Amino acid sequence: MSGKSYHTSNPETEGAIDRNVPDFPIAGQSEEESYFRTHSAPSYLPEIQAQLESFIEYHLKNTGKRIALVTSGGTTVPLENNTVRFIDNFSAGTRGATSAEYFLENGYAVIFLHREFSLLPYSRHYSHTTNCFLDYMVEKDNKIEISPDFAPEMLQVLRKYNAAKSSNSLILVPFTTVNQYLFTLRMGSEALKKMGKNALFYLAAAVSDFFLPQSRMPQHKIQSQASGKLIVDLEQVPKFLSRLVDNWAPRSMIISFKLETDDSILIKKATAALDKYQHQLVIGNLLQTRKKEVVFVKPDSSQDWVRLTDKQVETNVEIESLIIPKVVQEHTLWINS
Amino acid sequence: MSGKSYHTSNPETEGAIDRNVPDFPIAGQSEEESYFRTHSAPSYLPEIQAQLESFIEYHLKNTGKRIALVTSGGTTVPLENNTVRFIDNFSAGTRGATSAEYFLENGYAVIFLHREFSLLPYSRHYSHTTNCFLDYMVEKDNKIEISPDFAPEMLQVLRKYNAAKSSNSLILVPFTTVNQYLFTLRMGSEALKKMGKNALFYLAAAVSDFFLPQSRMPQHKIQSQASGKLIVDLEQVPKFLSRLVDNWAPRSMIISFKLETDDSILIKKATAALDKYQHQLVIGNLLQTRKKEVVFVKPDSSQDWVRLTDKQVETNVEIESLIIPKVVQEHTLWINS
Repeated sequence: MSGKSYHTSNPETEGAIDRNVPDFPIAGQSEEESYFRTHSAPSYLPEIQAQLESFIEYHLKNTGKRIALVTSGGTTVPLENNTVRFIDNFSAGTRGATSAEYFLENGYAVIFLHREFSLLPYSRHYSHTTNCFLDYMVEKDNKIEISPDFAPEMLQVLRKYNAAKSSNSLILVPFTTVNQYLFTLRMGSEALKKMGKNALFYLAAAVSDFFLPQSRMPQHKIQSQASGKLIVDLEQVPKFLSRLVDNWAPRSMIISFKLETDDSILIKKATAALDKYQHQLVIGNLLQTRKKEVVFVKPDSSQDWVRLTDKQVETNVEIESLIIPKVVQEHTLWINS
Repeated sequence: MSGKSYHTSNPETEGAIDRNVPDFPIAGQSEEESYFRTHSAPSYLPEIQAQLESFIEYHLKNTGKRIALVTSGGTTVPLENNTVRFIDNFSAGTRGATSAEYFLENGYAVIFLHREFSLLPYSRHYSHTTNCFLDYMVEKDNKIEISPDFAPEMLQVLRKYNAAKSSNSLILVPFTTVNQYLFTLRMGSEALKKMGKNALFYLAAAVSDFFLPQSRMPQHKIQSQASGKLIVDLEQVPKFLSRLVDNWAPRSMIISFKLETDDSILIKKATAALDKYQHQLVIGNLLQTRKKEVVFVKPDSSQDWVRLTDKQVETNVEIESLIIPKVVQEHTLWINS
């Protein structure tokens, strides 16, 4: 498990206002090809690539585990090169971090591609709460201790966390911007080709639909004008899912998420995504009810709702404890198909 | 110290697409008046107001402490009513959280008006690091403990935190959106009127310059179009600092921050802010060097740089340990003026 920082949240100064970088898109190329040609890879990518390859190699040789690449949290779209302002997508990373734990419990190794400082597996139980870190501690006999109110449960979580670490089953890979996300996902999926059908992509991150091309990004903070409105003119992010299905990881099982706020269009949008990208499963959910119910939509048009009972809601059962075993079943079917 | 959540990060559904809400701005009113008339206050505001008033009353009656209202972290601008996308301002809240600790050490009571989940005084030492929460823990004899590597320092931090709690010297007030920030700042400054010159505003939050008026906000997630660009047409946030100086808290000392990335315009912009708002002090800083140097700019055009020496940088001295005593001196001068 890597705890190293790659400064994903620092300003991306690579290629800043480089007029040699052609404007996006380039005629005659697919939008995806254009994207990678007109944008710079994060400088830390080779280092992460080496770690990922060694993680995958380890499991191929020693454990035979399946690997889930779980994406989690929202991507940002910087509006300036020295980033002060950015557009963000709402996501604390709850779905991804929780799902990663259940993948680990179900015997998978997990590549956790996450927004830096979003929720992480295991530590999620104690971060992003309104409880301050120090509220878990007490002083006793001039020593600091975990408060007895929290210690027993925290010990259980620590054991699971240490088990994931000591078995080399979890690797944490951060991103901040949509550009970092896209380059890292491409690299990760190419590294996972070796796993064939034993690789699973569980794309729970909230990826921006729009972005500001690097060639048009101002160097400095946008200055507000006396009377002025700000008009931000963004391009649509190319649809990378088709690349993932066709080229980057053609044998892997690919699961995408569809989050909507309007329930009348959820199924239609999930089905449209499957038609367009030809992948295996869309998990649909509504912002308002996403912790209580989701729907599995498959290419045969089946709609399979997964819902917590009232009793399960009361007793804080996590819906991911129902989702992941069902995903694992689907993955097994895919491997045997 | 309050650890309660006010759901500041939940969708703000109050007044959603209410066509009775007039479009912003209304002719014949100041922009600030128009803003508050055309936008809804957060529903939790009365509850926070009661807490703040009792906090202020406590210090007026019992301690005679000065009170600093410290704002910290970035505000968001939701682009939809059921918020999926928002524009954010880069700020982890380091300046505000660190400064709050030094205000407390210098005998102030502190109202910490902060972006929810940004850094908090004291706990900041252990959150938002690439260290996972659980990396501070070890298991020993079937019990969970703080790792001996961290325990001694953490005990010192815990003691300071507990001292702030037990002396009722720190109150945490969260915000997420720029709208929540503005309504809460107005309420807080009116509550602080009673403190007269003993109140200090230390406005370190990164507040959006632009916002999307509630009357124009779509109810549901913006749908991406097949070919489409996204054009976000934003209004400028009214300049509330003049209200703060003239009406809300006319006797308090007010300190604002100016963060730029281009060093050639920093002083000019700081001076322009003082000319415009007629407050007491601007602390200027550049994104690139903000942890090593800042400049105090005053209405008499004096520029006073506060810089860490190389040795101080090496030994991790925090620049706020120099900034706050200097601010306290200025506040004393203001009180005696």
